[in-house]
Amino acid sequence: MEQVPSQMTVIGFNKPGGPDVLQPETRAVPVPGPDEILIKVMAAGVNRPDVAQRQGHYPPPPGASDLPGLEVAGVVVAAGRNAKKHKLGDKVMSLVAGGGYAQYCIAQDAQAMAVPPSLTIQEAGALPETLMTVWHNVFERGALKAGETLLVHGGSSGIGTMAIQMAKGFGAKVIVTVGSRDKADACVKLGADHAINYRSEDFVEATKKATGGVGANVILDMVGGDYTDRNYDAAAVDGRIVQIAFLSGSPKATANFTKLMVKRLTHTGSTLRPRTNADKAAMVAAIEAKVMPLLREGRIRPLMDSSFPLEKASDAHRRMETSEHIGKIVLSL
Amino acid sequence: MEQVPSQMTVIGFNKPGGPDVLQPETRAVPVPGPDEILIKVMAAGVNRPDVAQRQGHYPPPPGASDLPGLEVAGVVVAAGRNAKKHKLGDKVMSLVAGGGYAQYCIAQDAQAMAVPPSLTIQEAGALPETLMTVWHNVFERGALKAGETLLVHGGSSGIGTMAIQMAKGFGAKVIVTVGSRDKADACVKLGADHAINYRSEDFVEATKKATGGVGANVILDMVGGDYTDRNYDAAAVDGRIVQIAFLSGSPKATANFTKLMVKRLTHTGSTLRPRTNADKAAMVAAIEAKVMPLLREGRIRPLMDSSFPLEKASDAHRRMETSEHIGKIVLSL
Repeated sequence: MEQVPSQMTVIGFNKPGGPDVLQPETRAVPVPGPDEILIKVMAAGVNRPDVAQRQGHYPPPPGASDLPGLEVAGVVVAAGRNAKKHKLGDKVMSLVAGGGYAQYCIAQDAQAMAVPPSLTIQEAGALPETLMTVWHNVFERGALKAGETLLVHGGSSGIGTMAIQMAKGFGAKVIVTVGSRDKADACVKLGADHAINYRSEDFVEATKKATGGVGANVILDMVGGDYTDRNYDAAAVDGRIVQIAFLSGSPKATANFTKLMVKRLTHTGSTLRPRTNADKAAMVAAIEAKVMPLLREGRIRPLMDSSFPLEKASDAHRRMETSEHIGKIVLSL
Repeated sequence: MEQVPSQMTVIGFNKPGGPDVLQPETRAVPVPGPDEILIKVMAAGVNRPDVAQRQGHYPPPPGASDLPGLEVAGVVVAAGRNAKKHKLGDKVMSLVAGGGYAQYCIAQDAQAMAVPPSLTIQEAGALPETLMTVWHNVFERGALKAGETLLVHGGSSGIGTMAIQMAKGFGAKVIVTVGSRDKADACVKLGADHAINYRSEDFVEATKKATGGVGANVILDMVGGDYTDRNYDAAAVDGRIVQIAFLSGSPKATANFTKLMVKRLTHTGSTLRPRTNADKAAMVAAIEAKVMPLLREGRIRPLMDSSFPLEKASDAHRRMETSEHIGKIVLSL
């Protein structure tokens, strides 16, 4: 095995601000605790919460690294005494509590998954966050079933493109909303049955039309604001609406809850980061059992937008903030 | 067996309006269809939807009787050819699609339940609507478990008093909101662990205090309006809020859905009347298996407010509209 150095290069920031605050720093390489592994990072996914953290809106939870980065892929180079799931030299991908923008990163052994041969290491580094977010929200919370219809707002985002593939992989019909023709094309190419351009069409009417008047059984919403009440309109009887963000900037919304009651809707939501390690390990175990076969067959893979060297993390954030990206942005090491 | 007459006395109304529009009429006794039974009504429960129907706000669903009355108890006096669950002479109680304010009423055989010896016939006639509403919303939708805390708004209503007993019967802690000292006392006597007078206390703070800061795991809400956002505050992490009415008169509400997302709340709701006969029969089967033992032991029984003769149905409605009643109002025949 190669030696693990004592120092490493990371991307941090001294004060909240624009993309330029992200700068290389030198830090001590962390030492894994009993249930942890140390990953030599080869790819680190860039996610919206990283941008919020950089802006000072999303402080890391107590005990977590202060560095951005919530998912990585790479090689296991050290392991705690209870870490038996993965061994030194294994290629793994994992959600991490922070600190992914670095040459080395700690992960919980139970939360790391073997990288299937069907994926490049860049794809693997861009996978855990969306995989776990979509799995938990669409399948565990939303209980999407084969034959049902999923409506995904933000269909061309990292979450959206993963949701399309996973929902299709499990036999559901998928409708997405997007803001451009290019994004619509990308979603349809990935398997979406119908793409609604929200700039020119009302998504409620379009969803009703695309489902023969029934509506969507599950709606994955990252927009909020005036979408909230409209989601209640677009949902089928017994529909489930799962809230994972408020990209409209408006978590406060006015809705007519008669629709929720009369249609027996379920409005729920979640955030991944504050979940306990036990909760995250349970999600990973479910994913290894249910989703890994589809990953191995190449039926689900992250749609990649772009890759940046670690030291160009600020450029990666700039790209994400344009909202022009289609799919995942990753840092390569 | 006694003869079934061809004509019967019912309570109907010619035009929507105040309690006085309810007047005795003579109608033909209905004939049960293949899956139905005819009940000689001995007691008919009075419910809020009956008032809304009388006011013209809640038209009966297609195919249902135009007469008010959603629950009855009495004796089976005729049965359709497929009706094998109950036989002539059996004392039964049942949810009905309408027409309960009458000497004879049709019920679905599968939705009728044997009256346990622990209940008077008046209690039995006041039971099905609240029993099914609480069972479905608190236990099936809200998934209340032993050791959890249920917050019930309107604790002294028919629904509320049933929710207290059922939740206690299944090992949960119960907090109620009420509008008077008398109502608080009645709820505590029924088993509620804590009663909050909403006129003098903030129910969010009081619920937090009564749960050591945790909040309520399930909230049964029939108020809506500004309670909606406050329910999100009063709920525990992973809490479930179940909406069954909007007594505030305001189904439109503004809420901060960040609370729903971050606390992983589930906001759902339902109305009983439009459910299919198959859905209602499934609820009855679950109740017979899970709740009937508690009914037989006398641990759950409707709290009775008052009883009126059938022809005094208008007085019964007046009583309900005062909101001074504690527990159920019933018509006796």
